[in-house]
This record gives sequence, structure tokens and C-alpha cells, in this order.
Amino acid sequence: MSASGDSTILARLFAIIESRKGADPSVSRTAYLFHRGIPKIAQKLGEEAVEAVIAAVQGNPRDLVNESADLLYHLFVLWSAMGLKPGDIYAELERREGTSGIEEKRSRTRP
Amino acid sequence: MSASGDSTILARLFAIIESRKGADPSVSRTAYLFHRGIPKIAQKLGEEAVEAVIAAVQGNPRDLVNESADLLYHLFVLWSAMGLKPGDIYAELERREGTSGIEEKRSRTRP
Amino acid sequence: MSASGDSTILARLFAIIESRKGADPSVSRTAYLFHRGIPKIAQKLGEEAVEAVIAAVQGNPRDLVNESADLLYHLFVLWSAMGLKPGDIYAELERREGTSGIEEKRSRTRP
Amino acid sequence: MSASGDSTILARLFAIIESRKGADPSVSRTAYLFHRGIPKIAQKLGEEAVEAVIAAVQGNPRDLVNESADLLYHLFVLWSAMGLKPGDIYAELERREGTSGIEEKRSRTRP
Repeated sequence: MSASGDSTILARLFAIIESRKGADPSVSRTAYLFHRGIPKIAQKLGEEAVEAVIAAVQGNPRDLVNESADLLYHLFVLWSAMGLKPGDIYAELERREGTSGIEEKRSRTRP
Repeated sequence: MSASGDSTILARLFAIIESRKGADPSVSRTAYLFHRGIPKIAQKLGEEAVEAVIAAVQGNPRDLVNESADLLYHLFVLWSAMGLKPGDIYAELERREGTSGIEEKRSRTRP
Repeated sequence: MSASGDSTILARLFAIIESRKGADPSVSRTAYLFHRGIPKIAQKLGEEAVEAVIAAVQGNPRDLVNESADLLYHLFVLWSAMGLKPGDIYAELERREGTSGIEEKRSRTRP
Repeated sequence: MSASGDSTILARLFAIIESRKGADPSVSRTAYLFHRGIPKIAQKLGEEAVEAVIAAVQGNPRDLVNESADLLYHLFVLWSAMGLKPGDIYAELERREGTSGIEEKRSRTRP
């Protein structure tokens, strides 16, 4: 992979998504997803995850980039539909960065 | 959600993950995942996506925060295992931000 | 694959599952699943589906047999927990076998 | 659920699926799936599983019947594409019915 993007795109992506709330579902994919409701948005997230899994098992990095972008987009739409903001999830990741660490689960699930 | 985290955690999370390559699988969850290989990492990603879907359909934002954090962690491990960096996916999201927009798929999939 | 089993196992499997309702969760896996509730059973179904997908994409028929058996088991437990019987699903498959056929969706989703 | 179907539909369904191998992908959904290949069939299986999970978590038995029928159909197409027959999976279920039982995993995964 040659080009390298910047994490500031995430905030712009989320702002665009939030701006589509209440927009015309016939002209915006995001507005259409909001219109269909949380179970349908969650379903799309699940479907994109399946596609990312397949791209990885097939050993195809380029496909994994595309499916990961789709996955993040639908995850962000789901957060927005559920009244969450990316900062809520970043805060949870920061919390795990503490004493017991991001890897805390390891000690819980294995001897 | 009260606390708001910062997107800089994503770069720190990815750096920690990369630093675990070749570490002892018996002391680090991330090293253990690398040791198990890409199909197992992909499987974990799929499982976390299922849990995120269920949290959303149940209308439980707190659970969705936790499952989303798990999802992002496993997605990052998968990117690392596949030789990708977050910047590769940010670049793809930036590309979609252009002329046809992040919502480009809309025009392709619906009349 | 050399050995060939008989579809009568499905009725026996479902009867065993139903007999575990109200059994001690500490001695029966099925009773434990019922005890955990529908979202957890559904989660297990989703996880087994992910494993079946991976076995197939890896081109591993023996793994697909094992994951398919796990998938059917959890699907049956979910049916039971939701008050369904296999006959309900067989009836739906029979209905699709009629005029428009099992393949009816084809005409709906593609021109 | 009022009507009760018969498990003989499963053998008929699988026979129909097998008969579509090599058929015109433009007139048969099953032939179209075979034409797209194993990763795409596996992807459809994963998607139907996600829909079944959502129907269950929403507590909707009628939707679960429909999604389960879709799931079984795609599972059968995947078996066929992988050179498996339902008897291979029935044999595995029968094997688990023995000494250690269908519930064998229980003893392995919990103390």
C-alpha cells in the first residue's frame, strides 16, 4: 500500500454521517440507512464483517482495505443511530490502555 | 456517554499491536492472536461483529461501546497481520470523500 | 466422505434438545444454553456460521462438516428456545417448492 | 406455527440444488450461486446467519422461520459446491450421539 491517509478523516466521516440525519432517504445512502432503522444498519455491519473475514482468509489485502472501509462506515452509522460518538469508543479504548492494559482480556480468558 | 476520548488512541493501539509481533504468546493476548494466524484473527473479528450486532438490536449503547472497542482491536490486529496500516484504510476513506463522495455506493446500488 | 448418515438424526437431535429444557445447566451444554437465553444462543449461531464460512473459503470439507454440525445444533437450540419446531421450517421450504419454486428469490432480486 | 412440514423436503431440496450444477446462471438462482463460486456462497451463508440472529434477538419467530429456510438453502448449496452431501453432516451428528453425546463439547469447554 503506497498512499497513507490521516485519522482526521474519521471525524469528517462521522460529521457527514450525522449531517444526514433527517435528510431525504432517496438521495443519500446514509439517510436511507437511518430511515431503515437500527436492525438493518446492524445487519449491514454484520455483512461487511463477513466480507472482511473472507478477504482476510483469502489473503487479499486490497479487498480487506475496501471491506474495512465499508465496515468502519457502517459502524459509524450504527454509533450515530444509537446516540454514540466516536469519542465514547475512544474513551473505552483509553480506559483499557491503563493498568491492566488493552490486553486485559488475556488474563481473564486464559490461565 | 459522559467521557470523550481522543482519536490519537487509535495510533497508540496500533503501535502496541505491532510491538507484540514475535512476543511470547503465553504472556500477550495480541502475540497469541498473531501466533494463531490470520483465519483465527478473522474469526474473532467476525465474532465481535456478531456481538456488536446483538448489542445494537437489543438497544444497549453501553454494550455497543464495549463490543465496538473489541471489534476495532481485532480489526487492527487483522490489518497488522495482513501487512496493512490504518493509513491504508484512512486513504481509502479519503478517496471516497472525493467527487462521488463517501456515499458513492448509493448511486450504484439503487435506482 | 465415506460414511453416510440418515436424516432421522435431525428428529433425534431436536428431541434431545427439547428434553434438556429445565435440566441442570451445570451438567448439560444444551441446558446451559437455554439458561443463558436467546441472545447468547443466537450469538453462538452467528459464531458457528463464521467458522463455517472460514472452513469453506479455506477449501476444507472436513472442517466444514464439523462446523456445519455445530451450526445445525445451535440452530435447533435457537428454534427450540423460540418455540419453533423443525417442521415449521420444513413447511416453509415445502411452500417454496411450489409454483414459484425454491428459487423464487432469483426472480425478485435480479432482472 | 400451524402447518408442520416433513424432513423429506431436505433430500428434495438438495437434489434440486445438485441438478442446477452447470445450469444457466441467468435463469436459476442456484446455478448463479455455483457460478459465483465458494467464497460468494459462503458470504451469503454468513449474511443469512446474521439475519437469523437479528430475527431471534428481536423475538420474531416468523422471521426466524424465513431466515432459517434461507440459511439451510445456502448451507446446502455450500455443501454441494464443496463436494459434500447432507449424509456427511448427518453422520457427524450421529457420531456425536454416541458415548460422549451430542453435548460432548460441554465437558471440554467448562470445568
